[in-house]
Amino acid sequence: MNTIWTRHHIISLANFLPAEYNMVLQTAASFQEVLSRRVKKVPTLQGQVVANLFFEPSTRTRNSFELAAKRLSADTLNFAPATSSLTKGETILDTAKTYLAMGTNIMVIRHREAGVPQAIADEMDRLESRVSVLNAGDGQHEHPSQALLDLFTICSVLDPKQPKIELLQNKKVTIVGDILHSRVARSNIWSLTAAGAEVHLAGPPTLLPKLFADWIPENQEDSPITERKLFLHWDVEPALKDADFVMTLRLQRERMTQHLLPSLREYHQKYGITRTRLKLCKSGVRVLHPGPVNRGVEISSDLMDDPEFSLISQQVTSGVAIRMALLYLIGGGKS
Amino acid sequence: MNTIWTRHHIISLANFLPAEYNMVLQTAASFQEVLSRRVKKVPTLQGQVVANLFFEPSTRTRNSFELAAKRLSADTLNFAPATSSLTKGETILDTAKTYLAMGTNIMVIRHREAGVPQAIADEMDRLESRVSVLNAGDGQHEHPSQALLDLFTICSVLDPKQPKIELLQNKKVTIVGDILHSRVARSNIWSLTAAGAEVHLAGPPTLLPKLFADWIPENQEDSPITERKLFLHWDVEPALKDADFVMTLRLQRERMTQHLLPSLREYHQKYGITRTRLKLCKSGVRVLHPGPVNRGVEISSDLMDDPEFSLISQQVTSGVAIRMALLYLIGGGKS
Amino acid sequence: MNTIWTRHHIISLANFLPAEYNMVLQTAASFQEVLSRRVKKVPTLQGQVVANLFFEPSTRTRNSFELAAKRLSADTLNFAPATSSLTKGETILDTAKTYLAMGTNIMVIRHREAGVPQAIADEMDRLESRVSVLNAGDGQHEHPSQALLDLFTICSVLDPKQPKIELLQNKKVTIVGDILHSRVARSNIWSLTAAGAEVHLAGPPTLLPKLFADWIPENQEDSPITERKLFLHWDVEPALKDADFVMTLRLQRERMTQHLLPSLREYHQKYGITRTRLKLCKSGVRVLHPGPVNRGVEISSDLMDDPEFSLISQQVTSGVAIRMALLYLIGGGKS
Repeated sequence: MNTIWTRHHIISLANFLPAEYNMVLQTAASFQEVLSRRVKKVPTLQGQVVANLFFEPSTRTRNSFELAAKRLSADTLNFAPATSSLTKGETILDTAKTYLAMGTNIMVIRHREAGVPQAIADEMDRLESRVSVLNAGDGQHEHPSQALLDLFTICSVLDPKQPKIELLQNKKVTIVGDILHSRVARSNIWSLTAAGAEVHLAGPPTLLPKLFADWIPENQEDSPITERKLFLHWDVEPALKDADFVMTLRLQRERMTQHLLPSLREYHQKYGITRTRLKLCKSGVRVLHPGPVNRGVEISSDLMDDPEFSLISQQVTSGVAIRMALLYLIGGGKS
Repeated sequence: MNTIWTRHHIISLANFLPAEYNMVLQTAASFQEVLSRRVKKVPTLQGQVVANLFFEPSTRTRNSFELAAKRLSADTLNFAPATSSLTKGETILDTAKTYLAMGTNIMVIRHREAGVPQAIADEMDRLESRVSVLNAGDGQHEHPSQALLDLFTICSVLDPKQPKIELLQNKKVTIVGDILHSRVARSNIWSLTAAGAEVHLAGPPTLLPKLFADWIPENQEDSPITERKLFLHWDVEPALKDADFVMTLRLQRERMTQHLLPSLREYHQKYGITRTRLKLCKSGVRVLHPGPVNRGVEISSDLMDDPEFSLISQQVTSGVAIRMALLYLIGGGKS
Repeated sequence: MNTIWTRHHIISLANFLPAEYNMVLQTAASFQEVLSRRVKKVPTLQGQVVANLFFEPSTRTRNSFELAAKRLSADTLNFAPATSSLTKGETILDTAKTYLAMGTNIMVIRHREAGVPQAIADEMDRLESRVSVLNAGDGQHEHPSQALLDLFTICSVLDPKQPKIELLQNKKVTIVGDILHSRVARSNIWSLTAAGAEVHLAGPPTLLPKLFADWIPENQEDSPITERKLFLHWDVEPALKDADFVMTLRLQRERMTQHLLPSLREYHQKYGITRTRLKLCKSGVRVLHPGPVNRGVEISSDLMDDPEFSLISQQVTSGVAIRMALLYLIGGGKS
């Protein structure tokens, strides 16, 4: 299947092609099947090295990538910032080059600053290495694997056998919360609008982009999508009206000390997802959250645990399948 | 052998059956044999995931479980509290559910609060998952794998070929130290008394339970053992008299700042295990310590290194075999 | 090949034999070849345990050893000082004995105090264990695997097919920087002089040994090398004159707070390696650095990135091959 896969790095979804989305979804679906077997391993990446360079720590995401790599039989290396050479004054690019020289095939990179994965990918190409770079979250820029696992989770709800983006045509997806600072929201906007969904963004004015066109260009020169259906709301109710899927974003507690938020409680009152608010949505609406969840803040505790509405566990499960798919597609046939 | 093993989680030894103890001992003995081979791996848990959720850090215990899992060919995930989502306000149950959703088969859990492994096991059952939970130490409650490796070490001394609890019938085992706060002591009391041994507890009054019956119920309603031979001593000498085995417990330095202890030196003078004190015991007496040891506090340094008396190294070796046995018994035939 | 390899531990290069150097170089060369294959694994250490006991943290060196071990199919255990029993008052030897009792076959040890790996090796021998100890850097004493990877890198430049120490006969190698506190310099002095190279040491007087003979004995009683060609310089220029290879050492920022250095900038002006200074060397001179590099301090940034001169990436790559070779030679035929 990956004979026609050409993308070498996965940094952003801004210029992802519909065919690429579908290839990722189909590959993930086939790995879901592998994961249902007793022995969940395939030899695809045997003898290859996947280095998780998490300059910004995240146990859950790192473990998800680690498990995906191990199930493809790769060897994994974990880079621990605390005890790293960075504290010894080494530059990020030099750290990456060290892992290149050690024989790394794929670098999974998370950093609190936007652009770091791209910079490392550029350097790897400049050096004519065959290393692939996978963005595991960079600052407030993008988090492609999260958006792809969200996409996979949603499409699998609509058609477990044949998840494909066409299923989202004209569906209404509402994203609620701190849009402005969210790399998850940004990546999801690219994928969901590319799939033809109507995307509604709702949150406190302080957490919404002011000059929207600046924040996310109407049309990136290299974007294949001519028109994106995107709407902004300061109130959550109109955004939720007739929604097919609702995504709540994690609220960073820092936002309060930054005076962007009055209080978590007030946030929950105005923007928290509750059973009452869900009544505004289409029947059969499902709720997603990238986790970790602040129970009773972004979403009411009982709703989060209600399998009729919550897709949160499916998202985590999809995460392993999606990351296997991404490592497989960019790592396939490496030596 | 595990065709008749029915226990799904291992949280406490309070209601362990004699047949279960012996099955663990025999399984561990067979793994001891595997560990003496050149290639120490068996494919039992190939493709399964063992997640070490050590909310309370412990390198030695985590590495022991990790090695046991690897030797059963399982994939392992390590949860690092420092960089974990807990610091981001996620609940412990949500963390566990994340690892469930990732595809974990067995969770090995350590937490500074009693009851956490049970709570996670209950949640796993409520969700009708097939995940097994193994308590790796919870607060001052229990530490089953430690007590089982102690039991295995002792029984292997008495009969290396056929370790079984019947060998402890009417043996005298003395546990010395901070009984009150020790999960190791508590788990050992269940196993040793279940084996029919006479268990003598000795320590400073401040580190002994006041209302003994409250601390450890004479008879748990669900306990299979009708009568337990248990004795308390404020002085160590009568406790040591004619003892077959002596267990010293690690002394937490916090106890002093809590004014429960005058000084480490005074503690050693009154309760430290020395060659002189061992003369009170049966000849051939052996000494155990769960480690890490404060040399010259719980036990005199030279005694700790004397293979004629000390079983400390054997305990660590038994630890890997016992943990392989436990993972094998609860993980057997998982998918 | 390792039928004639007799060394059980690798702690120091002071008494390494020429035949041993060449055996390491040839073994590393054969593993370089393995690393060029698509599947980079060999089953040599299958089922054996390599424990990385890094009392002094170092992600890059630990990952290099970890990767080498995994490519020999060994199981690896990582000891994390932060959460270790050391904080609980356990002695270093007791920690090592715990890993011995768990079934470790090879211990890779880094510690900020000189002599620790030797002390652990002595204890392992005293206990008649078959565990091998590999020094991964001890205080200001030695860092054998670093010196061996430097040697391998240099010899591979001179003859990629047949790296052997004879190639260094009468070559001039210049080591620049904080010689006094450098375990890297010390180990390199043993290997390079044993190879018959002329070794020139240059650095600020405060960072050079005062009583040279005390710092590094003219002739160790057990050293096989009768005469070592070693020269000291306070200025870098005469040291660089006609050099074939230049090694720059990492400068520890602590040195300044210790008043051993005026400023990093002044250090670079007087001892930094630049294109201009390299003109003093033989044409075709190559530059090495153990990393991590302080760009613009030990070496000018552009020079570091110039493949015509810099061997820094090759050093990292050689590191994995050399560590595979060392684990293979000392671990071969272990049970």
